[in-house]
This record gives sequence, C-alpha cells and structure tokens, in this order.
Amino acid sequence: MKTIELKKSITEDNDADARALRGELDSLGITLINLMSSPGAGKTTLVLKLIEDLKGKIACSVMEADIASDVDAVKIEKAGGRAIQVHTDGMCHMDALMTKKGFEEMKDTFSKLIFLENVGNLICPAEYDTGAHINMMVLSIPEGDDKPLKYPLMFSKSDILAVTKIDTIPYFDFDKAAFEKAVYALNPDIKLFYVSAKTGEGMKELEECLIKTVGD
Amino acid sequence: MKTIELKKSITEDNDADARALRGELDSLGITLINLMSSPGAGKTTLVLKLIEDLKGKIACSVMEADIASDVDAVKIEKAGGRAIQVHTDGMCHMDALMTKKGFEEMKDTFSKLIFLENVGNLICPAEYDTGAHINMMVLSIPEGDDKPLKYPLMFSKSDILAVTKIDTIPYFDFDKAAFEKAVYALNPDIKLFYVSAKTGEGMKELEECLIKTVGD
Repeated sequence: MKTIELKKSITEDNDADARALRGELDSLGITLINLMSSPGAGKTTLVLKLIEDLKGKIACSVMEADIASDVDAVKIEKAGGRAIQVHTDGMCHMDALMTKKGFEEMKDTFSKLIFLENVGNLICPAEYDTGAHINMMVLSIPEGDDKPLKYPLMFSKSDILAVTKIDTIPYFDFDKAAFEKAVYALNPDIKLFYVSAKTGEGMKELEECLIKTVGD
Repeated sequence: MKTIELKKSITEDNDADARALRGELDSLGITLINLMSSPGAGKTTLVLKLIEDLKGKIACSVMEADIASDVDAVKIEKAGGRAIQVHTDGMCHMDALMTKKGFEEMKDTFSKLIFLENVGNLICPAEYDTGAHINMMVLSIPEGDDKPLKYPLMFSKSDILAVTKIDTIPYFDFDKAAFEKAVYALNPDIKLFYVSAKTGEGMKELEECLIKTVGD
C-alpha cells in the first residue's frame, strides 16, 4: 500500500492578536474557554448544562460561532443563558481577530467566564490561537476511539478533554484503554473527563476543574 | 441577541483541474464518488460494507485521505479491499490536484468505482470540486437533526445523503421529519438513505442506487 504526502501549509500567524486579546481579558478578570469538537459532539448541550450548574457560582456568557444559523445561541438564551451569535460566513474556524470582534459586543455584560463555542470542526480550529486561556476539546463516544490517531493536533493543543455522551457507551465499540493510551501519548498533561450532560455523570468533576481554573 | 457577520472568502478555483480529472476518469470508464462527513460518522465502516456487498458486481477501490495515520486504509486492506492512503499533511480537505495525484498511483489497478474518503470535516470539503462524479455525504444519527441548518453547503452540494448508524436512533433525539424538511429545503434532488452498516438496514437500496449510477 502506497502513502503519498501532499505537503501544503495553511498556518497563519495570529499569535500577536491572540496575546493582545488574552491580555485584555486578564485585565478584566475574565477567563475565556475555547470549545472545539466535530459537528454534533454535543458542545451546546454541554455548555447548557455547565451554565445551569455553575449558576450562582460563576457568571457565564457564551459566544456561539457558526457558519450559518443561530440555533445554538437561541437554545442558550431560551435556557436563560447570555449568548451572542457570531457568523463566520463560510470560515471553518475562529481566529483571534474574530473572537476579539465578538468579545467587543459582550464587554458590557459582566462575565467571569466566557465559553467560545468554535465552529464544529476537528481540524482547522486547532491551528488558530483564539486568545482563549483554555482550549477544551469535546469528543463524543459515537465518534470512536481512533480519533487521536487521525486528528492528533486537536488533542495536542487541548488543555481539557471532555468525552461526552458517556451514557451511550453500551451501544458503541469504544475502547477506553486504547483511547486513553493514544490521548496521553499525544498530550500527557491533558485533563480528561467522561461526562453525560443528559444523566449528569462526570459533570461534577469537570465543573470543579473549571471553578478551580477560573479561581486561579 | 446580536449577530455579527465576519466576512472572509476562502473560495479557490480548482474547477478546471476537476473537469480535467473527471474527463480522464470518463475516458477510462471509472466513476469517482467523493465521500464527505464529520469525523466519526462512519465513512470507513460504510465503505467496508459497500465493497463487501458489491464484490462480484463492481470492481471497487478506495482512496483514503487523512491528515495523519493510515488506520482506515489498513482496515480496508485487512478486509480484502484495495486501498491507497493519501496524507494531506494538515490540509482539511481534498482538492482536484490532490485527488489526481492519488489517482495516478491507482491507475494500474482496474476499478470501475473509486471511493474517495475525504478528510473528516463537514465544512471545507464541500467547497472544493475533487473531480468526482458523485458527492456523497454521510451523516450519523448521533450528530443530530439540526446539521442542515448549521452546515448547509455540504447538504446543497451532495447528490446522495447516507444517514448512518440508524440502528442507534432509539438512543438519540433525532427528529426525522424536521431533518428531512431541512434537507429537502436545501436540496430537493438529493437521494436520501437511512442505513446501518452494522445491521445491514437500508444497504440494499443504497447499493442499488450506486449500481445504477455506475451503470449509467
């Protein structure tokens, strides 16, 4: 079997913009968490559960980034959360300038923690520093345990990994041991949580980690 | 709630290369099907089932495109299929030149049907004509019924839509009626199949459609 390498670089340096935004957020005492995953991994459902559970503990807001539609932001607002919708108009990821532009519209609302729900994409968002303090990857059980082998950059760049829909594990072939071995080989420091926003399993541990992070 | 438009175009014209490749494939009597989906939607499992079922009916080969690893191509070869692995080295989609380069390595093997398994990504691959005759989108039940609203281009550009993992529908909130309404609003001509490569449900209908397409 032949393997052909097709070299082409798509990296772009937006590090300075990201550092500037992070500095501004620091001066305001705001923590920004960049949530990244495949489409349908359950980012919005997880965010809904997090803002519900963190109510009274941390003032949260959500920046929803999508190519089109505002279904996610509407869901957050319906549930009583504060949300803003950003349209990337075809762009498959958020970069620091886009995030800054979204943040400008949220500045007046007091928040201690902002969740940026990035475009559903396991590739491109990992290549761009959004200015966030924490990169949090969301992977769902139905996607399979081989994802670290196929999308290594996302696992390498994430500080926290929330494996969602853990309640559905009986219906899928998901080898936790093989998965964890591949994840830790790419990123020994990653904080791994298995959660279900539906049943609440594992949510407490993840929330304690977030509370600790914001408090630091 | 505010919605901010972030305009930026990422379109690139590779239409001439795509037409040239399609012409070459036509002259050789080969049909190329471009398979696109999110990571973990089940493209490889579906292809494995298709080449197994089509054995003796259509000579098939598979071009596996991934950022890294060769787990999918190895799976296909282990199952007795003919596969080639293409690495995009970070690129989040295949374009016509990349596909042509992969095809050059497969030319000597007689095939009537080539499946190009594109990089797992519901966004960028829809923007590039690979030179394929058929765009086939794969969406899995666990990803949810709201995907047409959030990733409209992929649905608009696809000729066939295979909704996989239909056997898991009892465990997820997937509204078929709402889904179909949104899909047909974007693309009234799309051919929609609900399938399970695990149980075999719906596979016959999809295979008949492919046989008819190759025969045409």
